[in-house]
Amino acid sequence: MKPASPTPDSNSSEPRRLVLLTDGHTNPLTAKTATCMLRYCREEVVALLDRSQVGRSAGQLLGVGEGVPIIGELAAAPEAKGLMIGIAPPGGRIPEAWRPVVLEAISRKMTIYSGLHEFLADDPQFAAAAAQNGAALVDVRKNNEHQVAQYEPLPSQCLRIHTVGNDCSVGKMVVALELANALKRQNRDARFIATGQTGILVAGDGCPVDCVVGDFISGAIEKQVIAHQQREMLLIEGQGCLAHPRYAAVTLGLLHGCRPQAMILCYEAGREVVHGMAEIPLKTLAEIRTLYETMASLLHPSRVIGIAMNSRNIRAAEASAERERVRDELELPVCDVLRHGPDDLVQAICQFQQTHLQNAGPHTCN
Amino acid sequence: MKPASPTPDSNSSEPRRLVLLTDGHTNPLTAKTATCMLRYCREEVVALLDRSQVGRSAGQLLGVGEGVPIIGELAAAPEAKGLMIGIAPPGGRIPEAWRPVVLEAISRKMTIYSGLHEFLADDPQFAAAAAQNGAALVDVRKNNEHQVAQYEPLPSQCLRIHTVGNDCSVGKMVVALELANALKRQNRDARFIATGQTGILVAGDGCPVDCVVGDFISGAIEKQVIAHQQREMLLIEGQGCLAHPRYAAVTLGLLHGCRPQAMILCYEAGREVVHGMAEIPLKTLAEIRTLYETMASLLHPSRVIGIAMNSRNIRAAEASAERERVRDELELPVCDVLRHGPDDLVQAICQFQQTHLQNAGPHTCN
Repeated sequence: MKPASPTPDSNSSEPRRLVLLTDGHTNPLTAKTATCMLRYCREEVVALLDRSQVGRSAGQLLGVGEGVPIIGELAAAPEAKGLMIGIAPPGGRIPEAWRPVVLEAISRKMTIYSGLHEFLADDPQFAAAAAQNGAALVDVRKNNEHQVAQYEPLPSQCLRIHTVGNDCSVGKMVVALELANALKRQNRDARFIATGQTGILVAGDGCPVDCVVGDFISGAIEKQVIAHQQREMLLIEGQGCLAHPRYAAVTLGLLHGCRPQAMILCYEAGREVVHGMAEIPLKTLAEIRTLYETMASLLHPSRVIGIAMNSRNIRAAEASAERERVRDELELPVCDVLRHGPDDLVQAICQFQQTHLQNAGPHTCN
Repeated sequence: MKPASPTPDSNSSEPRRLVLLTDGHTNPLTAKTATCMLRYCREEVVALLDRSQVGRSAGQLLGVGEGVPIIGELAAAPEAKGLMIGIAPPGGRIPEAWRPVVLEAISRKMTIYSGLHEFLADDPQFAAAAAQNGAALVDVRKNNEHQVAQYEPLPSQCLRIHTVGNDCSVGKMVVALELANALKRQNRDARFIATGQTGILVAGDGCPVDCVVGDFISGAIEKQVIAHQQREMLLIEGQGCLAHPRYAAVTLGLLHGCRPQAMILCYEAGREVVHGMAEIPLKTLAEIRTLYETMASLLHPSRVIGIAMNSRNIRAAEASAERERVRDELELPVCDVLRHGPDDLVQAICQFQQTHLQNAGPHTCN
């Protein structure tokens, strides 16, 4: 059945009718993009294409996307309008075995969506085929940002909530999406602002900040915020960590560019060292909170109003104990938005909004 | 007379024998690149080319480069091997009137050096002419950095001094160069590490950090440090400011990538607001010092050991009073490296080195 409208989680104006390409990699670890698409844009997904798993379903293999079929050829989903690369392969390259599938999709005039480092449009064979068939190649990481931040006043009634983290891969995107969705369910005019490739594929737009040239990082995200400043609440996806040895430049450019009034600090329970850098211990959550509040407040008063715990690697009882411990230590609401639901953080945001608007007045700028 | 060897300020292995192109713009404000080249690479400069000022000298018009002639055509400097764009024009484009001069230099097989935003190699006419004549086009801002920081141990006996600032355009490059030169005069094995286009043109190499993609900023500067880690002292040019609304991403990526043990904080006396952003007051020097020490020390213990004052806009008596005031307030040595000479900061660096090596031991890594 064709979806009549985009899902509430997507910012797209019309449904993309997607086949997700996960051929040979339909597992939750590798197929991160596909899993997120199924979780947040279920209505836009027609099928998964995996020639080795035909007849099974997304729900069986990925734990999300109940009812989405796995097909072995594009002809099995004639209603599809787009093909999306559903994995994040090592090296950022499309597997050679996928080339014929992509070319067939192009010949069907489907739009090809990719968040890979290596751009489809830079591949001579894909580029030539797309030009010949009038098919669009969408490389969401590709950008030509070249404007510095203007630092113009933003309306104070547009609440900018930024999900920041103590490390990479702790769930900043998922938290921003879950909070935006929960707020929409309460009839709040909330919008998710994507800043990474998976978020952009889910949302249908956004800014790939990690691929923007240094001088223009803050300007690129400021442009996104200005475009949506008439909204009640923006949930802005964070990247990296201010203390990360590799990615802090992106984190700070993003923090300064979006000038959040409030932040949600995300972390993974049980993680003790920087992701992928076993020799570097993580700072404490209290240290990280101070760091973000100090750096954000250089440009605009900002504070951490809640903690998003990622408890994927611990059991329910441990997660409850950890939640209690962190709540006591930092004196802030704490939850795992997937395990416990986002209510505690939603409440923190709404309370902050009330206090904030009382202090700022509805028509001031900040 | 042809120079026999490169100047001590340049890292180049052989002299570039340059004509500096400042045609119609031979004044200290616009011809910043030419002025720095004359100050730090005098022996590599054969002439300035300015068709409107033939017969005068660089010294007369720019206040530096005594004895360097101004010529009206390339034929007047047959020994020249390179042509360098000597100004930073608004918009980053080569003036149209310069096109014939650049093309003539290419036909003479001269190397063309440019720090402009708009790359020579992307100009079809220049690219075709260069290919035909076998001339090199050197766009120092062009880069293909794509490696994240490795965060490998660096030898503790390699002292990394980073010139940081409370704003843009306060003299971080000049301070790093002057300190490197003063230390070399004391037979220290010091090396200037350039991180911006003018610094790279002066030094002959370096890393244009403001043009590197976000994820790779720290990796790009770390690569420079690793390449020179056998040196006694590296003087690493800073960029922007951690509190700058536009450029803090670059500043932090650079700070984390070079992991300095010590920093020199640069500022301009009398400046009260962010350069080019009159509505934003500058933080106090004490605040800025704490900020840099906090952020640098996330990855490696680091402190500010001296203050470089830029007193270009105040008189000598005011500069003395300001120097005294800041010295008392921050309890650190303070000088304007051009007006007062760099001795106080050189002494601070050498003292820091002694203490540091005693504490670290000569063969440890940090």
